[in-house]
Amino acid sequence: MRATVVVRPKQGILDPQGEAVENALEHLGFSVAGARVGKVVDLEVEATDAAAARAQVERMCEQLLANPLMESYEIEVHG
Amino acid sequence: MRATVVVRPKQGILDPQGEAVENALEHLGFSVAGARVGKVVDLEVEATDAAAARAQVERMCEQLLANPLMESYEIEVHG
Repeated sequence: MRATVVVRPKQGILDPQGEAVENALEHLGFSVAGARVGKVVDLEVEATDAAAARAQVERMCEQLLANPLMESYEIEVHG
Repeated sequence: MRATVVVRPKQGILDPQGEAVENALEHLGFSVAGARVGKVVDLEVEATDAAAARAQVERMCEQLLANPLMESYEIEVHG
């Protein structure tokens, strides 16, 4: 079953990559603010149904994909 | 206006970060395949309407956020 995880820096957490992107965009002439950079992970998990897939991906986030102190995550399971 | 850009490695393009994530998840005991890692950029653009915001973010992708040879991108404009 295909799943997508989006991991973002939590509010209030410094995001140097986001700042770099924002500065670079401003240098290119864009009017931009509040840029934040996170990551997206697409993967295929073995699971019998969507709920089981989501539970498994949740464990992956807790153990590897996200740092719960600094990052929040969203999981989407595709049919 | 808030926008979200998701940038992913194109199909067929080697994704070492995705492979590393997949290997690490397997070592943790998960059954996982086809992991791919991309990035997500959230930002605020100055624009009068959603179409103008989208056009501007499209230019940002072409000029900075994505490498069109290796990456594809999706833009979502929030209200």
